[in-house]
Amino acid sequence: MIGNEILSGKVPEANVVELARLLRSRGIELRRVVMVEDDVDVIAREVRELASTHTWLFTSGGVGPTHDDVTVEGVARAFGQKVMTSPELEEMIRAHYKERCTDGHLRMALVPEGAALEVTDFVKWPTIRMKNVWLLPGVPQIFTLKLQVVAAHIGDHGAFVSHAVYTQMDEGDLKALLDEVVAKFPNVFVGSYPKWLDPTYKTKLTFDGRDAAEVGRARDAFLSLLPKGEPQRME
Amino acid sequence: MIGNEILSGKVPEANVVELARLLRSRGIELRRVVMVEDDVDVIAREVRELASTHTWLFTSGGVGPTHDDVTVEGVARAFGQKVMTSPELEEMIRAHYKERCTDGHLRMALVPEGAALEVTDFVKWPTIRMKNVWLLPGVPQIFTLKLQVVAAHIGDHGAFVSHAVYTQMDEGDLKALLDEVVAKFPNVFVGSYPKWLDPTYKTKLTFDGRDAAEVGRARDAFLSLLPKGEPQRME
Repeated sequence: MIGNEILSGKVPEANVVELARLLRSRGIELRRVVMVEDDVDVIAREVRELASTHTWLFTSGGVGPTHDDVTVEGVARAFGQKVMTSPELEEMIRAHYKERCTDGHLRMALVPEGAALEVTDFVKWPTIRMKNVWLLPGVPQIFTLKLQVVAAHIGDHGAFVSHAVYTQMDEGDLKALLDEVVAKFPNVFVGSYPKWLDPTYKTKLTFDGRDAAEVGRARDAFLSLLPKGEPQRME
Repeated sequence: MIGNEILSGKVPEANVVELARLLRSRGIELRRVVMVEDDVDVIAREVRELASTHTWLFTSGGVGPTHDDVTVEGVARAFGQKVMTSPELEEMIRAHYKERCTDGHLRMALVPEGAALEVTDFVKWPTIRMKNVWLLPGVPQIFTLKLQVVAAHIGDHGAFVSHAVYTQMDEGDLKALLDEVVAKFPNVFVGSYPKWLDPTYKTKLTFDGRDAAEVGRARDAFLSLLPKGEPQRME
């Protein structure tokens, strides 16, 4: 996530949850999110570190034509490559803007040398991918649109199964029960999320994993430990 | 920002923008946001790195009583300290829960050894601060409440001044104009934010800095470069 507008509080960040949900539905874990300034060196250092330690890296923001759009340069530097004009993008931009085309518009044809341009039948404007790094725009509507291209490329590794249980118990009372389930089902991720001032429940428990049967058994083991009158509801 | 619920897409992140706005209003720049899993080693490594390179670090999440709440341990490890029970917190928790108090509730009395407990007249339940690291809860309503304690402590370094100008021009056309302003006012941060499908404007330009007169001059210099009929509005 790249952009001073997020770090200055001008704009609430909106893309993480969309990316997280797509990855989750494809069985891919989102392990880390980093939000940094529009600074070439900062971006380059971060991309080098994250791209070399993760399967995929997705950047959001900083791909427009203005002075504060430096993601392409940052990603190029991370891979020790130059920035070049993509002839394919240049042609599309010139065809789009015609006689109104400025040097500013043409800056959107810049890519790291060696980058691939990814498209689908539905999202024909190319999305830049530099090895395992996807360069996505920050504007939420376009970011979400481009996730379709990502989705077509990353494959499906089997969705996570997730169950939720809502209770009126607080986390202090739930702890012993949860510990028992966590110890018995090491491959099920058990989450506990207190809600503030909701009349319908106090704590939401989630049971997640790749094996549907095991996730179901963990949830049922938890249900069997609950006192009378619980849970409030399940999902 | 600590928590699998954010990284799994279960909950949209909501605290960054609140923290960013508070810091901004006090003249403090938010330089980096990192979202990581509920994992002691990951948290410890991140806290060690960020706390040693920044004036303040704020954690959000992972401070409840359940198995997935490991922020206190992660912060303690980052500073090479043990986790201990705070007698002050233990007393408050026992007084609050009375005969219903469980070991789970008492886990909320755990602090890194050497931590300070910060309060204000309005937020009397202590907030844990370990040197320059503030341990804030992830639940948005409580996070925002605790920011009052942070606000009382970090001082006021003079708010940033910010002007916004809205235009129907696209970024490609604005680039040359913006470059001129950026070159002339190196201490003013100029931001350019395209809006998607808004009938009232296409691009929002922002002019930010610590010197009100200089920020005003940068904004005026930009206005003088705009064609007839622009801007649409200003803030």
